[in-house]
Amino acid sequence: MAERGPVLVADIGGTKIATGVAEPGGRLITWTQVATPRDLDAEQLWRTVETLLLQVLDTAKITDLSELSGVGVGCGGPMEWPAGLVSPLNIPIWRDFPLRDRLADRFGAGDLPVRVHNDAVCEAAGEHWRGAGRGWRNVLGMVVSTGVGGGLILDDRLIEGSSGNAGHIGHVVVDPETGPVCGCGARGCLEAIARGPALAAWAQAAGWRPGQDGATARDLAADAAQGHPVALSAMRRAGRALGIAIASATNLCDLEVVAVGGGLSQAGALIFDPLQETLAAHARLDFARHVRVVPAALGQSAGLVGAAALISAPQRYWTGD
Amino acid sequence: MAERGPVLVADIGGTKIATGVAEPGGRLITWTQVATPRDLDAEQLWRTVETLLLQVLDTAKITDLSELSGVGVGCGGPMEWPAGLVSPLNIPIWRDFPLRDRLADRFGAGDLPVRVHNDAVCEAAGEHWRGAGRGWRNVLGMVVSTGVGGGLILDDRLIEGSSGNAGHIGHVVVDPETGPVCGCGARGCLEAIARGPALAAWAQAAGWRPGQDGATARDLAADAAQGHPVALSAMRRAGRALGIAIASATNLCDLEVVAVGGGLSQAGALIFDPLQETLAAHARLDFARHVRVVPAALGQSAGLVGAAALISAPQRYWTGD
Repeated sequence: MAERGPVLVADIGGTKIATGVAEPGGRLITWTQVATPRDLDAEQLWRTVETLLLQVLDTAKITDLSELSGVGVGCGGPMEWPAGLVSPLNIPIWRDFPLRDRLADRFGAGDLPVRVHNDAVCEAAGEHWRGAGRGWRNVLGMVVSTGVGGGLILDDRLIEGSSGNAGHIGHVVVDPETGPVCGCGARGCLEAIARGPALAAWAQAAGWRPGQDGATARDLAADAAQGHPVALSAMRRAGRALGIAIASATNLCDLEVVAVGGGLSQAGALIFDPLQETLAAHARLDFARHVRVVPAALGQSAGLVGAAALISAPQRYWTGD
Repeated sequence: MAERGPVLVADIGGTKIATGVAEPGGRLITWTQVATPRDLDAEQLWRTVETLLLQVLDTAKITDLSELSGVGVGCGGPMEWPAGLVSPLNIPIWRDFPLRDRLADRFGAGDLPVRVHNDAVCEAAGEHWRGAGRGWRNVLGMVVSTGVGGGLILDDRLIEGSSGNAGHIGHVVVDPETGPVCGCGARGCLEAIARGPALAAWAQAAGWRPGQDGATARDLAADAAQGHPVALSAMRRAGRALGIAIASATNLCDLEVVAVGGGLSQAGALIFDPLQETLAAHARLDFARHVRVVPAALGQSAGLVGAAALISAPQRYWTGD
């Protein structure tokens, strides 16, 4: 293992699989991604990941794995952490798949550290280490997309919680009485309201007619930008739910910065304006008023950069074994 | 300074002022308390605290301050932390009072550490160190009383947040649409519903007629125990609000244990049953289901024990200067 060598990284989700090689400081030397293949079995999907990892090693001209300082991977949850047995909600073919062990067997020669964490946690770590949260000690990183995930950095360290699951901002309760039922079974979670598909479904029920691409949050945001009243209401609905959840998290955790990424955050002021207004109404204690909500800065690469942080900055981003 | 000497401790609130001397392991050698005096000016109140501290030193037969390992104090918030300029909501005579500096001038000879933190944070630290949260790594300590406060221990360390204010569970939003307006100005905070005086006021508005002692949450709990229907509804209302806020905190922070103290927690099953039912409905992710809500174990002394933890176990309970 090369203490200050490059890091082999991957970001495995239900939509895409990305791999890369990062400098120890987090800059990506090379990376690639593919749409997550369907109709594969668990072993075939693993071989896809393996092939993509070998491909970026080849591009980076790394022929000896001992040049690496480690392997860091973000993967969709839930997972057994830190064991890295993954059961991603959106990759049904992997159930208790021993991702960390497979990576260690294939790439972890010698004492090369191999670490796997939740993909949203890696995105939050990436944004804190090298993105919109850089230089702040108390940061919530959020991903608002098909789901609503996140990761929590408090007192300058990634918080794991009892099972590596800290950061689940999507299941902060924002409307316990009249909110929709969430995928987790509870009523009124943030995710039940603000996840893209839920928002599109709400808009359709309110009379919005999506375009040819189907009822996606992207279409909805585009229509809102054109002034479609139902689409605008949907953006306000999501923004308000986000504002309430962020206020609760800020009051509870004394946050300085919330970095919001994921597809829905692309809607800009249509989402951020109602978010800020609601946040200001509910984060009124002196210490909470100053929280800054900012767009995530690293875009698609946040997960890969955060995966590198698990290896390059473990004193802040890794407490597992 | 005696590395393993006793700790001089105090817990200063709007209702009572307690002082004590603790063994380095947290056991109280002696302690005393008085009702917080009214009609004093800021300096007179300081001299009351000073006298009470000298009194417990005398009882413990400590004549040389260098026998101590430090001075730890919990005080009502808000405060500038870690500077220890305190402005307790319920002690209006102290505004930006330099409590930490005064303590250091009077008792902090040599390099004796003198540390001041929020009283609810000290209670949470005490419960984690030597009470109901002992042995767990992810604990929320709550105090449900005139206000609703708390402190957060995650990954086995007290979380400070950006200004020492992490743990404000009372301002997690539980009913943003129809909830009452909180003292902080926001609508639907947990504290606006579950603090004792708010609960008693709600019950009075619903037809409850308190006894001769006035409309206190204690009377209300006693009437609920007698089966008074409005008083029972009030306990359910508080229990449900607590359950929602605890579910949000558990989902966000991956908690293992929530220790609930303060006067209202004395109501027992009348509060804990609706709390548990609501929590179970809103903490449904696998990792969150296992959270245990337990009564705080240290009672009145939790704040003093936690104040000792600031000195005796700073690697877990103190990150200030």
